Amino acid sequence: MKHVAVILSGCGVYDGSEIYEAVITLLSIRQQGATYQCFAPDKDQLHVINHLTGDTEPGATRNVLTESARIARGDIKPVTECKPEDFDALILPGGFGAAKNLCTFAVDGANSQPDTEVLNVCKAFAQAKKPAGYACIAPALAASVYGNNTNMTIGNDCEAAQGLNALGAQHVDCPVDEIVIDSEARLVTTPAYMLAEDILQAHAGLSKLVETVLSMD
Amino acid sequence: MKHVAVILSGCGVYDGSEIYEAVITLLSIRQQGATYQCFAPDKDQLHVINHLTGDTEPGATRNVLTESARIARGDIKPVTECKPEDFDALILPGGFGAAKNLCTFAVDGANSQPDTEVLNVCKAFAQAKKPAGYACIAPALAASVYGNNTNMTIGNDCEAAQGLNALGAQHVDCPVDEIVIDSEARLVTTPAYMLAEDILQAHAGLSKLVETVLSMD
Repeated sequence: MKHVAVILSGCGVYDGSEIYEAVITLLSIRQQGATYQCFAPDKDQLHVINHLTGDTEPGATRNVLTESARIARGDIKPVTECKPEDFDALILPGGFGAAKNLCTFAVDGANSQPDTEVLNVCKAFAQAKKPAGYACIAPALAASVYGNNTNMTIGNDCEAAQGLNALGAQHVDCPVDEIVIDSEARLVTTPAYMLAEDILQAHAGLSKLVETVLSMD
Repeated sequence: MKHVAVILSGCGVYDGSEIYEAVITLLSIRQQGATYQCFAPDKDQLHVINHLTGDTEPGATRNVLTESARIARGDIKPVTECKPEDFDALILPGGFGAAKNLCTFAVDGANSQPDTEVLNVCKAFAQAKKPAGYACIAPALAASVYGNNTNMTIGNDCEAAQGLNALGAQHVDCPVDEIVIDSEARLVTTPAYMLAEDILQAHAGLSKLVETVLSMD
């Protein structure tokens, strides 16, 4: 039975993990007969967004690990405890948290700086040649992890896609229900809510991503 | 195309909606070819629980509608705007929020008081004979809505089940992957995370609940 590490970035599309994507990822992993363990960095979020109004809540602070624990029903560990030798694969759902808390892409674009702890884990999986899946905007982090013109997608968003290319990736346009595979890097990406207008569309791409990551020996 | 009202109770199993249950419910509704609109009461949560430690966060306040908006990607309305004539069915996922924010069952047990706004909406659906689904601990609210020895389940939890009966319901034991149907009340219930040890188990019962609610003409 394959065991998958899943890195979350908070709880809510605008300042954390996109919740539909996170749950669909976890459900798909189990439906494919594999198991998962969630992780997140133990640090404050970039900010807190009121998801009803879209406004930043001034002065509010929330911790990425503590909020991610809401998705994982408390069963989550600090990302520093995530070791590639314990897992067969790594998957990162999207949500702005991936570009705000796991790296600074949402603020710095082509000058994005990955979170050091998260980068160390993601690089360790890449160097161990373990298959990995990055959904939605999470490829903004994958660009820093893989570089080297690795093929990946965030859909067809031109400015963000150019940002990925500036970070060393090779962006490939992709419809919402499809995936992009870089066989050499063993990296799978899908646009998810970069393009999805509906949970069904997100489900189509994400379940394909999970199935493909788990099919890689 | 059927249109379903979904009432959420926050964002996180210990003080709001159970996130897996909420997302599985929404995904299942769309997979069955129906659409949904989310609602939640616009009031403070009973409390805020740190989902990493399980501890109550002293002095912290969060709004049920604002936090529920995290699950619904911002597309959510105050429960007072939910009118049965606009919908074919009503579904409430579980999580402690259903027993803390939608009624006081978690604190008061057999003396549970439903939130007035939520009760008005749920009663209106019941009186209009629109089919409804209540998952996990949400039947604690259904007991106040339906009473009259209506058949419902929260699995096999003896003390909580007795609380439901004291509120006027007729509790029926039910395995995690099954549902209980009261045909006269047009009410469907499933234990979900009252019994589930895994997201797959919750998915089995919840997808059956959604399918059954949507099959009722």
